[in-house]
Amino acid sequence: MAIGGAEDKIKKRVILSEFTRMAGGEKARIVIVPAASMMPRERGDLYASLFRELGAADVDVVHVANRPEANSPLVVECLERATGVFVTGGVQLRLISMLGGTEMSSSIRALLARGGVYGGTSAGAAVISSHMIVTGRGGLRVRRGMVDMAPGLGLVHDVIIDQHFSQRGRLGRLIASVGLNPQFLGVGIDEDTAAIFSPGGTVEVIGEGQVAVLDASQVTRTNLDIVPKTKPFSIVGLQMHLLTDGNRFNLRTRSAEDPSEVVRLTPSRKKA
Amino acid sequence: MAIGGAEDKIKKRVILSEFTRMAGGEKARIVIVPAASMMPRERGDLYASLFRELGAADVDVVHVANRPEANSPLVVECLERATGVFVTGGVQLRLISMLGGTEMSSSIRALLARGGVYGGTSAGAAVISSHMIVTGRGGLRVRRGMVDMAPGLGLVHDVIIDQHFSQRGRLGRLIASVGLNPQFLGVGIDEDTAAIFSPGGTVEVIGEGQVAVLDASQVTRTNLDIVPKTKPFSIVGLQMHLLTDGNRFNLRTRSAEDPSEVVRLTPSRKKA
Repeated sequence: MAIGGAEDKIKKRVILSEFTRMAGGEKARIVIVPAASMMPRERGDLYASLFRELGAADVDVVHVANRPEANSPLVVECLERATGVFVTGGVQLRLISMLGGTEMSSSIRALLARGGVYGGTSAGAAVISSHMIVTGRGGLRVRRGMVDMAPGLGLVHDVIIDQHFSQRGRLGRLIASVGLNPQFLGVGIDEDTAAIFSPGGTVEVIGEGQVAVLDASQVTRTNLDIVPKTKPFSIVGLQMHLLTDGNRFNLRTRSAEDPSEVVRLTPSRKKA
Repeated sequence: MAIGGAEDKIKKRVILSEFTRMAGGEKARIVIVPAASMMPRERGDLYASLFRELGAADVDVVHVANRPEANSPLVVECLERATGVFVTGGVQLRLISMLGGTEMSSSIRALLARGGVYGGTSAGAAVISSHMIVTGRGGLRVRRGMVDMAPGLGLVHDVIIDQHFSQRGRLGRLIASVGLNPQFLGVGIDEDTAAIFSPGGTVEVIGEGQVAVLDASQVTRTNLDIVPKTKPFSIVGLQMHLLTDGNRFNLRTRSAEDPSEVVRLTPSRKKA
């Protein structure tokens, strides 16, 4: 579950409730990782009390401040018992440089393999894909040089995730990311909105805002390969899908699925 | 020629030079209409001196402050002698309520029919199409109610033009405009950038920024018809083309044309 940041923590808490439900509800054992945050204690405590209020059976906060700590047996043991891991916002470069290639990231992969759930908001969402956006200017003015990328945790493949999408005007940088290599679908997630990736290769939207899916596979022409970094680039044939709560998109066929089907398949959340 | 506003008036003046060239260059007789502006005298004088500097043979400023003045024989006579008319920025509602259905707008249509050229920047660009955007919030957060429309001058059909496009984050409102009726192509023009519509049904881009062309004809699903005005809407299958200087797009086939062909067809500007 990739959350676009600033998810509602006070009112209906639709997204955090759904994460708790997916992690097992009353049987959920959730591990919070606030490593991306500059105030990890406060962040960790905040989410811990939220998940407890939402009915999770067991909530732990794991604090890691460097790579050796992310390799510690204590952390691995904690994740081995978990049904869900929740990674908070902050600085994604800080997060990935601490977790990338550690025992902790292996434990997170093992958690998913046994049916557990990963939730990440903001920076915690950005690191989910194999290729992630590290920095880059916002704004619709598309420039080739407006985005820098780095390897992510690789929990979801063939997508590039961006967050705070509408709120920070990041369409341009996501187009720049997918325009060069149409293998990757761009997934831009608004605040208080989540994209739930399933092992079956679909993504479903919940929350208040939109998820933009950018598909460059039909692009017939772009000058991305030759245009100077500071200049706007051209791209012809980009497909854009704007999805809202309840919409579901198939990442393999690159097409939207019928929303009526979505309602039928996920009755539990509709009742909640 | 629809200009996205804030065209360069000091340095290379690519756009205003091209307008002057299209109006006949040394033989150009240009009429400036600053009716949309709140300071029409200053606006008119500014553009008059610019077009004179750029070599136009004859430059007039026509001031109209109400509909009777836009029906006056003096104005009609002035436009009958012109090879180009240039409409400045300001408030498009002010402009269209003053010109719509007047002798002046008939004279502008006649000017185009005999091979003359219309140039409009900002509000002057917005009024070109049959359906124009009057007001509407900027920002990527797409809401159904984010755009209000009104009839424009109808010099170009089957498009809806928006200006200051990237600079004011107007993608959302243009999607809202074309999403409901895919007959219309959305044309969003950046500042210091122009879209040149030809009678043959092509549009060519010049200037520093981008022109976004939005095509909703392949949209397979949207909830625009049912979603509350204040909520984000979904739209699946929108096509987006980002065009830059020298790119040409065929409005009839809704596809981009080969840029090498553009260079071959318009050698005069490339030399200028």
